[in-house]
Amino acid sequence: MIEAVGKRAEIEKRFPAGQRLDAGDAILAPGLINAHTHAPMALFRGIAGDMRLREWLERYIFPAEARNVSPDFVRWGTRLACLEMLLSGVTTYADMYYFEEVIAEATREAGMRGILGQTILGFPAPDAKTPEAALQRAELFLRRFDRDPLIVPAVAPHAVYTNSDSSLKAARVLANRYRKPLLIHLSETRRENDDLRAARNLTPAALLESLGVLSGRTLAAHGIWLDDADMRILARRGTGVAHCPSSNMMLASGIAPVRKLLAAKIAVGLGTDGPAGSNNDLDLFEEMDLAAKLQKISLNDPEALSAETAVELATIGGARALGLANEIGSLEPGKRADLITISLREPHAVPLFNVYSQLVYALKGSDVRDVMINGRLVVRDRRVLTLNAAEILAKARSYQQAIRKSLRF
Amino acid sequence: MIEAVGKRAEIEKRFPAGQRLDAGDAILAPGLINAHTHAPMALFRGIAGDMRLREWLERYIFPAEARNVSPDFVRWGTRLACLEMLLSGVTTYADMYYFEEVIAEATREAGMRGILGQTILGFPAPDAKTPEAALQRAELFLRRFDRDPLIVPAVAPHAVYTNSDSSLKAARVLANRYRKPLLIHLSETRRENDDLRAARNLTPAALLESLGVLSGRTLAAHGIWLDDADMRILARRGTGVAHCPSSNMMLASGIAPVRKLLAAKIAVGLGTDGPAGSNNDLDLFEEMDLAAKLQKISLNDPEALSAETAVELATIGGARALGLANEIGSLEPGKRADLITISLREPHAVPLFNVYSQLVYALKGSDVRDVMINGRLVVRDRRVLTLNAAEILAKARSYQQAIRKSLRF
Repeated sequence: MIEAVGKRAEIEKRFPAGQRLDAGDAILAPGLINAHTHAPMALFRGIAGDMRLREWLERYIFPAEARNVSPDFVRWGTRLACLEMLLSGVTTYADMYYFEEVIAEATREAGMRGILGQTILGFPAPDAKTPEAALQRAELFLRRFDRDPLIVPAVAPHAVYTNSDSSLKAARVLANRYRKPLLIHLSETRRENDDLRAARNLTPAALLESLGVLSGRTLAAHGIWLDDADMRILARRGTGVAHCPSSNMMLASGIAPVRKLLAAKIAVGLGTDGPAGSNNDLDLFEEMDLAAKLQKISLNDPEALSAETAVELATIGGARALGLANEIGSLEPGKRADLITISLREPHAVPLFNVYSQLVYALKGSDVRDVMINGRLVVRDRRVLTLNAAEILAKARSYQQAIRKSLRF
Repeated sequence: MIEAVGKRAEIEKRFPAGQRLDAGDAILAPGLINAHTHAPMALFRGIAGDMRLREWLERYIFPAEARNVSPDFVRWGTRLACLEMLLSGVTTYADMYYFEEVIAEATREAGMRGILGQTILGFPAPDAKTPEAALQRAELFLRRFDRDPLIVPAVAPHAVYTNSDSSLKAARVLANRYRKPLLIHLSETRRENDDLRAARNLTPAALLESLGVLSGRTLAAHGIWLDDADMRILARRGTGVAHCPSSNMMLASGIAPVRKLLAAKIAVGLGTDGPAGSNNDLDLFEEMDLAAKLQKISLNDPEALSAETAVELATIGGARALGLANEIGSLEPGKRADLITISLREPHAVPLFNVYSQLVYALKGSDVRDVMINGRLVVRDRRVLTLNAAEILAKARSYQQAIRKSLRF
């Protein structure tokens, strides 16, 4: 827990016996929060790209997953993702994938905080043949990690277009029974909205509201095509949004109305999305940079989203969207000690006139030096203390061969 | 010079006595080309931002320059910029600034290749009170660096809106007399186009053409608001364009029609622009990533600009735009040995399914390991051999204090 925040002299006086982690010439910041990803997909990094979401999912990702995703794949993929996220200053991440209990084990082992959602899909998935089976898996998962200090287990119906009304409702009922969050992709593509409008004359947000799915903590990923009425629903329900600028640009999904979402008092965090063709890395520094630049260029206004706001999105904004603002997301006494130091020793770090501008537009994930999560030092001077990097990279390279063979490309 | 390109066994057989630089698990690539920047502005990194070009120039940059820019400032600013560019794989850069002969000295000392343009402005600049004085400076500069192996001296009238017709014409005459390039900002903002349309019913490109300014090697920075007729002019004249996606997004200047420029057979390179509020770093890896993503999202087409094309823009595209495609920009026998290695040892580098996708969407400037320019190793295992990094960073920090004082903020 953070006991106090203040100037060095003051802190040294109050805690004379305190252990000192000298960060040298560095910035001390709250740990970054990756509000939307699919961690194990790190093993599919860049497997296909430069194409639209549905084609990418149906032609590459779903087949690759059907042939490769196992508990072992998920374990090593999560370790690889955690290694990458820790080295770029992410201390908490929200995930939606399969075998989520394995992801939870690997995340806990890495010493990271995770809001981890077991996926519910309307068609056979690598870990469940039916949505009913997936819901059973999810319940076991919620029970097992109910009171974990680092893991918040969650239920993750993939999207409205991949789930029936009844499995969407069942997912909410289950999440509420255990007082856990529900994670879902929402209005990511124009097609998602158009299809539902044509079939049922509803927006995805309105459908969720009509089914009672938003009656509890919900994190909606993307939210690109939300309209004003949708935003009123989300604001009223306290639903958070994970903005994923890199993924949205790369898949040409659209530009989320971030300025409007913030004006509507909706909590917005930043996510990388999965690293398999919708981003290809898990770097929140890049998402901060893109979030600011994308609002500026799309709204034709260089003041549309400032560097300071971009830092907020990556920290306290993400915490609010995840319902964890009382615990993480800022350097305040009483919050969990989720901290990072960012070195100012590289040439791109000097001179420094404005710390927010530097963080968003000049500093990199590779400048992160130390990472503390829940009071435990997990990265020291760019060495991850909780994971065996050499073993993880070797395993990733061997998965590369196996995946290549499985897809014959 | 590159003698041969081929598989390891073949090369070892042909050159048994060759010295070997083992890059381990790495990609060997042509050096990146930063086709537009203002290197010494590294000392103004992030001095002001989140605002529009004219306000930023007139309220912050021009006053800061008037009070601070001296030969000493330019020397240390260039050293800082070269240090940063070398460490992120840039081997050649195009520059427009003041005291360009000092920039040339510092660039040569760093072992980098530079196409360096002495600025011509219609109002008093830090190094010349009048455009006539600037043209005189430019001529001395062209003479002095006429046959340098690394430096191509150039003439750089800032833009049509900051120069008279006569100084634009004189700049071209001077450049042609020495057979050197002319660098200029062109159609960067809608206002630049609108003002000229209102005053003279011309586009900036049409004005340059009518004045004969394009009758020789020209590199136009930005080119955001070029119309179809402008593109026909540039294509006919062989004028290159430096696309600066980061700057264009940050200043909300607009989105350059890169796909159309390429379709019109115009040579397009990538530039960072200056690091003082229109970018804040000098990282071509980020420009590759943005160039691809910005065309995709703006054209609503995930195939609008592929990873492979983004790599081309940063290498051979820049070489073509600068008129140096016979010498640099690709790994081909007979070209200069401007090479970089990019390490694949970080977690975001594995697995690897597509090398272009990895370079553009996953790898970072910080992954660059070795840099060779003109056959000389200038970076080895992330240590710059030609510059004193500690001294440069110390000097940059002391300039930070002086600049802060000069602006009283």
